[in-house]
Amino acid sequence: MPIYNPPLRDMDFILHDALQVSTQEIDGYSELDRDFTAAILDEAGKIARDVLAPLNLVGDRQGCVLENGVVRTPDGFKAAFDTLREGGWTGLDCDPEFGGQGMPYVIATAVGEMHSAANMALMMYPGLTHGAYSAIHTHGSDDQKAMYLPRMVSGEWTGTMNLTEPHCGTDLGLLRTKAEPQDDGSYKITGQKIFISAGEHDMSENIIHLVLAKIPGGPDGVKGISLFIVPKFMVGEDGSLGARNALAVGKLEEKMGIHGNATCVMNYDGATGYLIGEAHKGLRAMFTMMNEARIGVGMQGLSQAAAAYDNAVEYARDRLQGRAVTGVEAPDKPADPLIVHPDIRRMLMDQKAFVEGARFFAMWGAMMIDRSHRMGDAEAEGLISLLTPVIKGFLTDKGYQSATQAQQVYGGHGYIEEQGMSQFVRDARIAMIYEGANGVQALDLVGRKLAANGGKPAMAFFEMIKAFIKANEGDEALKKDFLDPLKAASKDLQGAAMYFMQNGMKNPNAALAGSTDFLHLFGHVCLGYAWAQMAVAANAALAAGTSDEAFYANKIRTGRYYMARLLPETALNLARIQSGPEPVMDMPAEAF
Amino acid sequence: MPIYNPPLRDMDFILHDALQVSTQEIDGYSELDRDFTAAILDEAGKIARDVLAPLNLVGDRQGCVLENGVVRTPDGFKAAFDTLREGGWTGLDCDPEFGGQGMPYVIATAVGEMHSAANMALMMYPGLTHGAYSAIHTHGSDDQKAMYLPRMVSGEWTGTMNLTEPHCGTDLGLLRTKAEPQDDGSYKITGQKIFISAGEHDMSENIIHLVLAKIPGGPDGVKGISLFIVPKFMVGEDGSLGARNALAVGKLEEKMGIHGNATCVMNYDGATGYLIGEAHKGLRAMFTMMNEARIGVGMQGLSQAAAAYDNAVEYARDRLQGRAVTGVEAPDKPADPLIVHPDIRRMLMDQKAFVEGARFFAMWGAMMIDRSHRMGDAEAEGLISLLTPVIKGFLTDKGYQSATQAQQVYGGHGYIEEQGMSQFVRDARIAMIYEGANGVQALDLVGRKLAANGGKPAMAFFEMIKAFIKANEGDEALKKDFLDPLKAASKDLQGAAMYFMQNGMKNPNAALAGSTDFLHLFGHVCLGYAWAQMAVAANAALAAGTSDEAFYANKIRTGRYYMARLLPETALNLARIQSGPEPVMDMPAEAF
Repeated sequence: MPIYNPPLRDMDFILHDALQVSTQEIDGYSELDRDFTAAILDEAGKIARDVLAPLNLVGDRQGCVLENGVVRTPDGFKAAFDTLREGGWTGLDCDPEFGGQGMPYVIATAVGEMHSAANMALMMYPGLTHGAYSAIHTHGSDDQKAMYLPRMVSGEWTGTMNLTEPHCGTDLGLLRTKAEPQDDGSYKITGQKIFISAGEHDMSENIIHLVLAKIPGGPDGVKGISLFIVPKFMVGEDGSLGARNALAVGKLEEKMGIHGNATCVMNYDGATGYLIGEAHKGLRAMFTMMNEARIGVGMQGLSQAAAAYDNAVEYARDRLQGRAVTGVEAPDKPADPLIVHPDIRRMLMDQKAFVEGARFFAMWGAMMIDRSHRMGDAEAEGLISLLTPVIKGFLTDKGYQSATQAQQVYGGHGYIEEQGMSQFVRDARIAMIYEGANGVQALDLVGRKLAANGGKPAMAFFEMIKAFIKANEGDEALKKDFLDPLKAASKDLQGAAMYFMQNGMKNPNAALAGSTDFLHLFGHVCLGYAWAQMAVAANAALAAGTSDEAFYANKIRTGRYYMARLLPETALNLARIQSGPEPVMDMPAEAF
Repeated sequence: MPIYNPPLRDMDFILHDALQVSTQEIDGYSELDRDFTAAILDEAGKIARDVLAPLNLVGDRQGCVLENGVVRTPDGFKAAFDTLREGGWTGLDCDPEFGGQGMPYVIATAVGEMHSAANMALMMYPGLTHGAYSAIHTHGSDDQKAMYLPRMVSGEWTGTMNLTEPHCGTDLGLLRTKAEPQDDGSYKITGQKIFISAGEHDMSENIIHLVLAKIPGGPDGVKGISLFIVPKFMVGEDGSLGARNALAVGKLEEKMGIHGNATCVMNYDGATGYLIGEAHKGLRAMFTMMNEARIGVGMQGLSQAAAAYDNAVEYARDRLQGRAVTGVEAPDKPADPLIVHPDIRRMLMDQKAFVEGARFFAMWGAMMIDRSHRMGDAEAEGLISLLTPVIKGFLTDKGYQSATQAQQVYGGHGYIEEQGMSQFVRDARIAMIYEGANGVQALDLVGRKLAANGGKPAMAFFEMIKAFIKANEGDEALKKDFLDPLKAASKDLQGAAMYFMQNGMKNPNAALAGSTDFLHLFGHVCLGYAWAQMAVAANAALAAGTSDEAFYANKIRTGRYYMARLLPETALNLARIQSGPEPVMDMPAEAF
């Protein structure tokens, strides 16, 4: 069975050596000292390793089963969810007013990585619930908040997001689900939604569906979309459960992965729903969920790569095959372990450098979110808005690649389901697709975020990197190994942005044909910046004297690998972007 | 259900415009005129589309079932195999002396691509048989050939390759299966083999296992390995089937894909076997199978990419979502088809440029094999030996990526099993692993093939490209779009080879840490060369006048895309190689 090693040492380094959270001027951060975060993360890691991870393969093999309108989740899932509920993990970063623990998002991100790494399919149930919580918390009325949030925070009730319809995915303007106003202020919701994760299951007493629908007579297209709360069971004023609402799961999809999560076709047949926020402004409310969900999905990419990496390392150390080309390393054994072979190491280093870089990037991004939410910092808000598609797209594209590489380390054994490596790959695959396929993320980045607010966030990003380089370039080794490559990559990114500015006005395809390369280029610069910051932090720890020299020295080694072998992809991204729209667009559609 | 469109027009172009097969001075090629090849490929394409493809999803869903020692293949598999047998397809390029049709390998390659694209799992049954046929044909005694080959050529009997044991994959020196000599000249084979594709099934009367084992008292390691014929049922002198041999399937593996093929644990319990060739020289005989199998596996990578691409194109044309950024294209419809969007086109162009380039490369390689086998051309033999790991490694790595991209075009629908896109990805995944994982291919290329025969084949490869560029650089457009990029990529490849020569002697890790990048670099140069040759052929057809101008013009467009957007990866490969062994090797093993 696959193992999972919670990356506690690495998270401690990121939080305290690199981000220095307890000294940040952000509400709630002063409490985050080393002991405090260690206590939380240690406990979260135990749950990941001992409760969630052992159910991962079980969930994949059993999947969810639909019988007579009831969905049965895999053995052990409900008990594990109870453990999460009882420990207060479902409300970790939720508003204390509704029973949450009010922890900063940076902590929830670290916990979320571990739990998702251990069991991605299971963690989608609370994950979706959190998204629905946020939408109600931000856009709901006081009554709605009081009625729904405490039970969603406690995990008694779970939530879902209902956007997609059979003919309507990215293009929400095509939505057909109807919401007809009733005399009592409620609506009757009618339509079919598909790909509804956690749409029906046996893990909670009630399911609060958030459903996008159109009120007849409203504006056409996306401007006529409203968001509704549609509970599975009607809720009395006192919170008691009443009659079953007129909605039902029509089918469970058979998917490539995340078998432990129920992906439902949901049929709404005049179900009672309650408008959240204003009529026809549903998209805005939905984006509260979407942005949060996109970062969460980026974390799924990272988390599957991290879990797969743990197993690849263990296998590479245990499996004996061949001899090191530079001389026998295990003379007492019939062969050397795989880890002596350069190409095996290359694969492990690719994974390690990606995973640790992405982990910093995600936690740094979470700190920006905290700065934005807790301090109203507009610059941080602009930055995270700019970077949300990068976190989602880059971490999932590379996370899938990384998990595939971990599987490759196993050779033939990696293809056998009982080893669990196939599952990491299959589960990671969905993260490139849902919450906006990665091509849509690239479109969001290039078509919207890059020029948002007059380009201020993008400029702030470049300035931030420039200032960082300037502040640190006194250190020769750092300059050569980290700052110079970061500068070169950042220059590639600016070159690409410049190309878009110069050509995109005349021909939008000039920008959009390069959008995915731009997203990857951006992601590399972010991870290069992450590694440079970690190198500075590791150097500082070494200079200050530490009993754990090896950890810091190896951190710098891993960073050097990223800068030398992964970051140079930016030049390729730029070359592709600058090759222009013609090669992409000039083929007649019928000639494909 | 997924579709499959046999690429008949493209194969006709490659065979006749580009390779000009009927004018090549290779035995049997003069018959290959346009009508003749069209007749064969048309018929093969029909079988692919109408017989094999409809069973692909069925095979994936049902898989193989083991009951009481008998393996049941999916519904329809046996009938489809009968169609292949009855049409003589199982012996298409086999020796007429044993009932084969004696067709050139270039034709078998084209047929093989289509059949494997349509149903990879099913085609592994005849595929493995062909490998076993080749080993017996090359190394078997006259009696062995007479006894086994006619029935393997006709498909009455099938074959397998038994190499792997639980503790022994790439490192065959660890082999434990024993072969004890008997008085009658036969051997008793005892041991366990795993990952045996087509090891047991209900599609043929007998299964001829080729098994690697050690004769006690022989040399240690790979020098003491011998190859044996071990039939499932004993065979009488007249070819009649006798008693069951002492071998049995112990288990079927549950795998990520190729569910329609039975991957068996095989237990040999004193089974009667017959030595092929000399004792202790089994590895040489095995390599006859392996080299053939490696090219076949490369074709699997290409074939899955090709089939997935067909479906991605169809979906991108049919699915309506969003509007073209440059203005509405389908005003009569609620939205434009996906294919108007630049990032969708980028994905389709990536796939198209890879698939068509790889198809040429594989068929050109098959022509080299024909030149070697039919004409005893040593230079062609050296070339194909050098390129075998490139065909295997590059076509499967990129084929998997390409199939993943095709799945991505489908958005959420691509993750649902009934669409079939997941299966292309899952089936393609094994091709990167078996017959020597791609890291082993890279090791073979850099550690063995590059310097083989004093480096003559490698030098001949570079000379061939240089001569081609020189012969064609009079055409300005061709020079700019094709020859200059090819020259640059070829220079990167030579730079990498030079780096290995200068550093690899002192430190072998300097070469091996860059081996996978070198394999990819080599693959790109091969596909760049492929596209340059196709561009020359397309130009010639246009200059000569043709009723199918669009086909040739679009061929050049696709080639330009490869040169502009995919080939530049060579610079990244070179940069990684030149970053040297240190980043890859200097992490202590315990620090991963």
